[in-house]
Amino acid sequence: MLELRLVQGSLLKKVLESIKELVTDANFDCSSTGFSLQAMDSSHVALVALLLRSEGFEHYRCDHNLSMGMNINNMAKMLKFAKNDDIITIKTDDGSDTVTFMFESPTQDKISDFEMKLMDIDSEHLVIPEAEYDAIVRMPSAEFARICKDLSSIGDTVVISITREGVKFSTKGDIGSANIVCRQNTTVDDATVIEMNESVALQFALRYMNSFTKATPLSNTVTISLSNERPVVVEYKIAEMGYVRFYLAPKIEEDEPETSFV
Amino acid sequence: MLELRLVQGSLLKKVLESIKELVTDANFDCSSTGFSLQAMDSSHVALVALLLRSEGFEHYRCDHNLSMGMNINNMAKMLKFAKNDDIITIKTDDGSDTVTFMFESPTQDKISDFEMKLMDIDSEHLVIPEAEYDAIVRMPSAEFARICKDLSSIGDTVVISITREGVKFSTKGDIGSANIVCRQNTTVDDATVIEMNESVALQFALRYMNSFTKATPLSNTVTISLSNERPVVVEYKIAEMGYVRFYLAPKIEEDEPETSFV
Amino acid sequence: MLELRLVQGSLLKKVLESIKELVTDANFDCSSTGFSLQAMDSSHVALVALLLRSEGFEHYRCDHNLSMGMNINNMAKMLKFAKNDDIITIKTDDGSDTVTFMFESPTQDKISDFEMKLMDIDSEHLVIPEAEYDAIVRMPSAEFARICKDLSSIGDTVVISITREGVKFSTKGDIGSANIVCRQNTTVDDATVIEMNESVALQFALRYMNSFTKATPLSNTVTISLSNERPVVVEYKIAEMGYVRFYLAPKIEEDEPETSFV
Repeated sequence: MLELRLVQGSLLKKVLESIKELVTDANFDCSSTGFSLQAMDSSHVALVALLLRSEGFEHYRCDHNLSMGMNINNMAKMLKFAKNDDIITIKTDDGSDTVTFMFESPTQDKISDFEMKLMDIDSEHLVIPEAEYDAIVRMPSAEFARICKDLSSIGDTVVISITREGVKFSTKGDIGSANIVCRQNTTVDDATVIEMNESVALQFALRYMNSFTKATPLSNTVTISLSNERPVVVEYKIAEMGYVRFYLAPKIEEDEPETSFV
Repeated sequence: MLELRLVQGSLLKKVLESIKELVTDANFDCSSTGFSLQAMDSSHVALVALLLRSEGFEHYRCDHNLSMGMNINNMAKMLKFAKNDDIITIKTDDGSDTVTFMFESPTQDKISDFEMKLMDIDSEHLVIPEAEYDAIVRMPSAEFARICKDLSSIGDTVVISITREGVKFSTKGDIGSANIVCRQNTTVDDATVIEMNESVALQFALRYMNSFTKATPLSNTVTISLSNERPVVVEYKIAEMGYVRFYLAPKIEEDEPETSFV
Repeated sequence: MLELRLVQGSLLKKVLESIKELVTDANFDCSSTGFSLQAMDSSHVALVALLLRSEGFEHYRCDHNLSMGMNINNMAKMLKFAKNDDIITIKTDDGSDTVTFMFESPTQDKISDFEMKLMDIDSEHLVIPEAEYDAIVRMPSAEFARICKDLSSIGDTVVISITREGVKFSTKGDIGSANIVCRQNTTVDDATVIEMNESVALQFALRYMNSFTKATPLSNTVTISLSNERPVVVEYKIAEMGYVRFYLAPKIEEDEPETSFV
């Protein structure tokens, strides 16, 4: 039996909104550690990893490890019913082929429940080694989202270059070229902060970067970790519970097709 | 001669917005009692009844009973010109084939008038007997609107079930099933209140329910009156003036076509 | 060399938004007087004239008179990157075929620059004689925008009639006719004020009037100058810097094609 009760229901809504553009169907894995997901986008270029630790739930009962295959869009549709201050409970019985979502208003005046069929989804679990990165930027997530959106109106790819002074985002397209520099600022909270061993400059598809920024409502800051010849990690922390991480392989040459992630 | 002056002009705008999705052309009937309308939707499944009592107008002159045929969309277009605090006057002369709407800003700095051609519309006036209902729910209109909208993303029909504890809205569709329960709460103003002789469970097309909720801006609460084998009445009261009521025949079997209202 | 630094960057964004619907490509002319533009719309019916005086810039260096041909849409796209409180610098070198826009955040934490190719655009500079007008209306720009938008839902042309009492906007269409009168009011700031030698009534295409109102964010008031047999001037003043003016030839007969401006 599985029963997870999350007081801050709005959080699960935001998680689904952040991944539904990238992922169609995925397995949610439940264990004593927490509620997690790992999935590739349909073109196998980007990878999403989600973790909501069990400690973050008001009530977390998971008798056996369990993998629940769900259509992310349908799940997002159901979660739209929940108001932001609703308490969300996810329930299923061992061997059942359905999952139930229950939403309770804080006053208990309104209680909704939704039953959804589970799916069988083939998936391979990648082990992503924790690694050192050449350079790590932490910056306001809204600023990063705006930069990706703005650059998309000019070009298709972004070069992210990190030096000790700051991070530079560059693109070019038919109408011209653009550079945006965010300078390191350690005097203000939640401003741009750089940690680096080595300067890096890597190129990525803006289309994926824009998808990742759908997670902006989850956190005020985003962390971008870069190393040469490794996928970038774009991470949004979920307060006291875990994270959503997006991995994307760099583009080697502008004219080449994107490298597949695996 | 007809001359009706309504200080709260925003009210007439909201009335038109509430019916224009359902009704294309309709006769507005003016008598000493008030300004009223009764019309069926084009598929003859739902009925709208509007009453604005003469006492609610600042000035109400109606020398003879009069029926003015109007295209509801065109009338709504003209009323969009009125700002929410404008005073609206409706005027026509006996035998004239046009009606004039006049909008005055509260400061009298801006005065607009619109002349619109009247139409000849065949219509039959149904006498709707006042009746006892098995169960009546009064609930926040915004909550009812949200429930109808949310359920539409899952199914096409809603079963409304009323018991002493509360009202339950249920639907099912390809992606799963949903139940929303609003519990009776007599301790808070404008919360859900149930009055019942007998428990009922009736099924309706969500498409029409969603149309009815266009009247939500007219009132903080909506009253839903249900009896077996009778059309449901969804009523929005218009403060001190009257009401907009929507009637809809229940669906007998899920797979059958909707019963016609008359 | 050209280097113009504008502290109130939002102003240039609004200017571009106000003209981009009407003008595709245009030459920006820089001289010691200021930064200006004159362009006709693609159908040669309306004319736009912009002036930003050199005194309004924080720094204004223009060694030689210069004409920079730009695609207005691309320029507007680049200016969208600037936040409203960004400082904008426009730079180019003598003989260069590119122009650079630089946006600095007030804290200097974020600096963006954009390089755009200049274009060769044939254009003829019209000398528009300063003239006396039969009647001039100054009215709230938001009110004028709303009137043009509202009337467009009924008809294609507007008759603007000015008398000592006020200004009347009239249209007719298939669904009826509409008149909106704004009365002169000299007791309130930014209300409607009439100056006239002679009453006028001229007819214009609403489509152009609606385009002109894209300049509404530039100023709280708009000035409309009318004379028989002369193009109307719709002017939005830009505080302490200059103006955007739109010129439109009146329609002579309702059924005739619009007169070309030149």
